[in-house]
Amino acid sequence: MRIGFLGFGLIGGSVARALRSAELSRQWEIVGWSPSGDGPRRAAADGVLDRASSRPADAVAGADLVILAGPATACLRLLDDLAGPLGDALGADTVISDVASTKAALVRRADAARLRYVGGHPMAGRETTGYEASSPDLFHDRPWVVVPGAVATEEDVDRVVSVARACGGRVVRMDPEAHDRAVAGVSHLPLILAAALVEAVAGTDAVPRPDWPLARELAATGWRDMTRLARGDTAMGAAIAATNAMALAGRVRDVRVVLDDWLAELERSGGPDEDSLDARLRGVRDRLDRSS
Amino acid sequence: MRIGFLGFGLIGGSVARALRSAELSRQWEIVGWSPSGDGPRRAAADGVLDRASSRPADAVAGADLVILAGPATACLRLLDDLAGPLGDALGADTVISDVASTKAALVRRADAARLRYVGGHPMAGRETTGYEASSPDLFHDRPWVVVPGAVATEEDVDRVVSVARACGGRVVRMDPEAHDRAVAGVSHLPLILAAALVEAVAGTDAVPRPDWPLARELAATGWRDMTRLARGDTAMGAAIAATNAMALAGRVRDVRVVLDDWLAELERSGGPDEDSLDARLRGVRDRLDRSS
Repeated sequence: MRIGFLGFGLIGGSVARALRSAELSRQWEIVGWSPSGDGPRRAAADGVLDRASSRPADAVAGADLVILAGPATACLRLLDDLAGPLGDALGADTVISDVASTKAALVRRADAARLRYVGGHPMAGRETTGYEASSPDLFHDRPWVVVPGAVATEEDVDRVVSVARACGGRVVRMDPEAHDRAVAGVSHLPLILAAALVEAVAGTDAVPRPDWPLARELAATGWRDMTRLARGDTAMGAAIAATNAMALAGRVRDVRVVLDDWLAELERSGGPDEDSLDARLRGVRDRLDRSS
Repeated sequence: MRIGFLGFGLIGGSVARALRSAELSRQWEIVGWSPSGDGPRRAAADGVLDRASSRPADAVAGADLVILAGPATACLRLLDDLAGPLGDALGADTVISDVASTKAALVRRADAARLRYVGGHPMAGRETTGYEASSPDLFHDRPWVVVPGAVATEEDVDRVVSVARACGGRVVRMDPEAHDRAVAGVSHLPLILAAALVEAVAGTDAVPRPDWPLARELAATGWRDMTRLARGDTAMGAAIAATNAMALAGRVRDVRVVLDDWLAELERSGGPDEDSLDARLRGVRDRLDRSS
């Protein structure tokens, strides 16, 4: 099976590394292109890619599977290219997949162009970016969501499933809207909360908080953990928010309702009731514990 | 110097362990009492305490320094006890300190009772609780806020500073209101956001979210990091919110304003602008980077 990557950073690089360290790794011929070319060049030198492609058409030509591995909005543009100028390089049975964070917009775009698309989303990441940060273990025992488009056959799905499994992923088949609503809650809302926490406490360059320098001195592990997501790839974060805006906005509204309820408790006349606060925090912890 | 702990969990245990592993550790005679007695008993068996005290008065008697090491509200009750029934056990020059998360309420209470109080707050913690989770390195190179009450002399402050330094802490002297506002931002708001995230996405036992079981399956490291604080000591969290309610409510209001601004961008007619989102996330990351 020949695989061509369009885009090749942390996630694409980790997929390629995982395939290279999988059993029977030589069954995969892997080529890759990225806008800067840096990642594919290094990966070819490392033996992770069989070849760095200098043009998208070279990565696509002869591929059994094309994996779009950029931010979700870059994947949308690549789908347009595959439905247009890159279409000639695409074989009749080439399957197109991706590893982007949102799925509904991509499925809609691929279906409209009648592309053989089977979307994918391996549920793993880190705050570092680029091929250099990639790891063959990133997807080990992690869910890998598979979202077939309207044109894809079961054989097309199998091609993507085989890659997901070779990377150690647990395949979860979902419809794109359910996927986007779910990740809006467990992945995209956390990103917005991390960013909002920084803006609220540190302020912005335009409107800095005068008490930030002192507060910063006292920041400990809690602050570090709660802001880690805000250190990640900003282009990926912007593409997530741009392609999952409605589901994400719904989640932000949900958390606002909850925060209003906390405010009511904190500002209760006579002061908050410590026992209610403790019970509430216990309830939260119990829900988390039952989930692990 | 003889030190008596009232309360003895993660933080108190870590202070005692740090003193035991410090140079000249035998200069400290350390005794401890806690409501359950479990932590002090184990610490005495470990050689971390010289003796487990069976009653608060025994831990206080003859102490040069009494360290209150429970949730902030428990410390308030212990201050009342020291100003009342435990007063007879207190020496004329015994200094009282603590390691609780908020300071203004404690200083007010101690000053009202004319106690020789020098509040402390070592800025470190973890989501595990109890003496068993304690570590001698917890405070190494971390800020240790010192907040003298009205009655304390410079010699009293020095006594607390010497303990903080022996634990590896960097002493930061602050007034209690500035401390409470600062930690409301970098420590207490993060806790509330972690809890609110769980309540918004997982729902509560009373009102569970039907889409939570599916979302939970897709949760990755971002979710884990953003909810870690909600796994911590609930009694400590409740005491924090109860004793720093106004500063914390102000921080919650700040983050609501920021979230409203994110909502406006996400719900912008025609969809969010990807470049603005990217610029905004870059601004957030830059502010974090300049802080490290």
